[in-house]
Amino acid sequence: MKRRQFLKGASLGAGALAATAAAPAIASAQENLKWRMVMPWPKGTPGLGTNAEKFAAIVKEMSNGRLSISVYGAGELVPPFECMDAVEQGVVEMAHGTPYYWQGKNPVLNFFSTIPFGLTAWELTAWLRFGGGQQLWEEVYADFGVVPFYAGNSGMQAGGWFNKEIKSVDDLKGVKMRYAGLGGEAMRRIGANITMLPPGEILPAMQSGAIDAAEWVGPWNDLAFGLYQVAKYYYTPAFHEPGPGLEIFVSKEKFDSLSPDLQAIIRYAAQAIAENTWADFTFNNIESYQPLIDKGVEVRQFPDDVIMALADASKAAVEEIANQSETNKKIYDSYMDLVKKAARYGKEFEATGLLQRAKVWGY
Amino acid sequence: MKRRQFLKGASLGAGALAATAAAPAIASAQENLKWRMVMPWPKGTPGLGTNAEKFAAIVKEMSNGRLSISVYGAGELVPPFECMDAVEQGVVEMAHGTPYYWQGKNPVLNFFSTIPFGLTAWELTAWLRFGGGQQLWEEVYADFGVVPFYAGNSGMQAGGWFNKEIKSVDDLKGVKMRYAGLGGEAMRRIGANITMLPPGEILPAMQSGAIDAAEWVGPWNDLAFGLYQVAKYYYTPAFHEPGPGLEIFVSKEKFDSLSPDLQAIIRYAAQAIAENTWADFTFNNIESYQPLIDKGVEVRQFPDDVIMALADASKAAVEEIANQSETNKKIYDSYMDLVKKAARYGKEFEATGLLQRAKVWGY
Repeated sequence: MKRRQFLKGASLGAGALAATAAAPAIASAQENLKWRMVMPWPKGTPGLGTNAEKFAAIVKEMSNGRLSISVYGAGELVPPFECMDAVEQGVVEMAHGTPYYWQGKNPVLNFFSTIPFGLTAWELTAWLRFGGGQQLWEEVYADFGVVPFYAGNSGMQAGGWFNKEIKSVDDLKGVKMRYAGLGGEAMRRIGANITMLPPGEILPAMQSGAIDAAEWVGPWNDLAFGLYQVAKYYYTPAFHEPGPGLEIFVSKEKFDSLSPDLQAIIRYAAQAIAENTWADFTFNNIESYQPLIDKGVEVRQFPDDVIMALADASKAAVEEIANQSETNKKIYDSYMDLVKKAARYGKEFEATGLLQRAKVWGY
Repeated sequence: MKRRQFLKGASLGAGALAATAAAPAIASAQENLKWRMVMPWPKGTPGLGTNAEKFAAIVKEMSNGRLSISVYGAGELVPPFECMDAVEQGVVEMAHGTPYYWQGKNPVLNFFSTIPFGLTAWELTAWLRFGGGQQLWEEVYADFGVVPFYAGNSGMQAGGWFNKEIKSVDDLKGVKMRYAGLGGEAMRRIGANITMLPPGEILPAMQSGAIDAAEWVGPWNDLAFGLYQVAKYYYTPAFHEPGPGLEIFVSKEKFDSLSPDLQAIIRYAAQAIAENTWADFTFNNIESYQPLIDKGVEVRQFPDDVIMALADASKAAVEEIANQSETNKKIYDSYMDLVKKAARYGKEFEATGLLQRAKVWGY
């Protein structure tokens, strides 16, 4: 899920925000409500658009049609990066997205999506549901007049495609790469030459030599993009995206106007879809991995000194966000407290178990 | 979650099945239904009982009180290991549990809870939601006249408490240990002396020397039990329980009698609670781990040759289950197909990422 992926799509929706602001008023009756949900990705986008539409379907099913949500893909009603503005301004009732798409409003929103060397998908739910993360998120989103609900995860992403092996930090210096978000910022700080490209331009840019490396999502989406055609080395996993979270957010005014049962239906439909979405990514990433390798891909991991250099650069970038305000610091402290405890637990439980299992099944 | 944990409690409920069969008939009106849900664990059991009660609460909230579920702990209405029978016989409408508690009916039910060196929590949801697992589960449970819904996970459990280090397979021979399920069977096959004990007897049995080793759940529950008082070495993780699944099951006849919106509310409330339950275990296990270590515990992992011996013994036991019937073989094939693909993916994504992160944060 990369920010620039939607910039092309955005042009389709130019002016749409103004146009739809004049759309017919939404019925205010409790029964038979018709709401609209916008997204920064196209309808039908695997894992993302499909689960947003499933969310709308189960809300309708559970409410016996009393709350009907129409889903609009990138640019259909509003430009992709104006989804938050559209809900904030009351143009639509709700949106499906990922918090770091709105980081222009406050970079602390990265914590509710993902942070380099941060929480995994399962740990992110632990923080949100039981570690105070949800309350902190609501506090930040209150500034925009919206209520957030966690809505899933893409799982641990991939570290990207390189046309040479990376054996030291020096091998990254000057490399022209498409690398998103805080991961791109960390790469930049250790000497890489970061250029953001819309997804559709990654393949041709690699082919022409305009860039030497690129990261996209994971095996499912990377296989679909054909990135194995232009780079031999596939680095796993993404140091910068250990478990990017998705969200559904609703205008607070509109949410508060609902009866308690419809509020509960939105809340728990989002939680059900959260589980469904990550299961979807997990299943399809696992199923796509060997077929991707069979294309002649060489799987590699960044060596320890590269990881430590990326960690130092990432930590500095993240701390700069924390130091911007008291709220940001509070979120950073809460999140990092759990990351540091999870670091040891995750090594001695999940990582150890996964390595033992790999050996047992011949890997 | 160990089978024998509830045998003591079971006596409390002796005769309850017969007694409650004569309870007043349940209202059949669509509006204002009052249902009963039984569990094999006490009310209020952290992570288990608490999330079952939360499930009932959110069903009531989403249905605006049209479906009200009273939750009964182990022995309150029926003995803990008769929950499946109680639903099958129409004594109560539904139950919260874990499939391997009913393995006396068919040992293939282990696949829907957990299998040694099998699917993790997140992979189990991938299999159930997208890999055909749910359909297979429904097929098996149709024999009992019930409909299953996945309802969460305890996450990767711990390998247990030992009063000496395990450096080879020989070190396990003759060791008297409390070790549950297929894991206990694998330990038995490589020479350990397995004895099952109710949970409350684990601590005194270790203290008296009646047993030398025991596994229970994970840091959260093991800390609460005080097992660090009687054994110094804590082995992580559980080779035999990489992600034990929980369930809610409903009488098929009762479920079919519901309106589609109430059916949907049960289905998606269970999926929401699935996510919530695992988040609960994740958060509390992480929070409990360092405090447990601070009691003077030495964390260890089984050496490779022990893991491979346990794997051989486990595979043999699991294959015996698969060979019992065509249905069992079909479930085994479907599950194992995903495990084998997940083995490599999990090593090169999640395990690698968790190890890189541990190094970054000093572990």
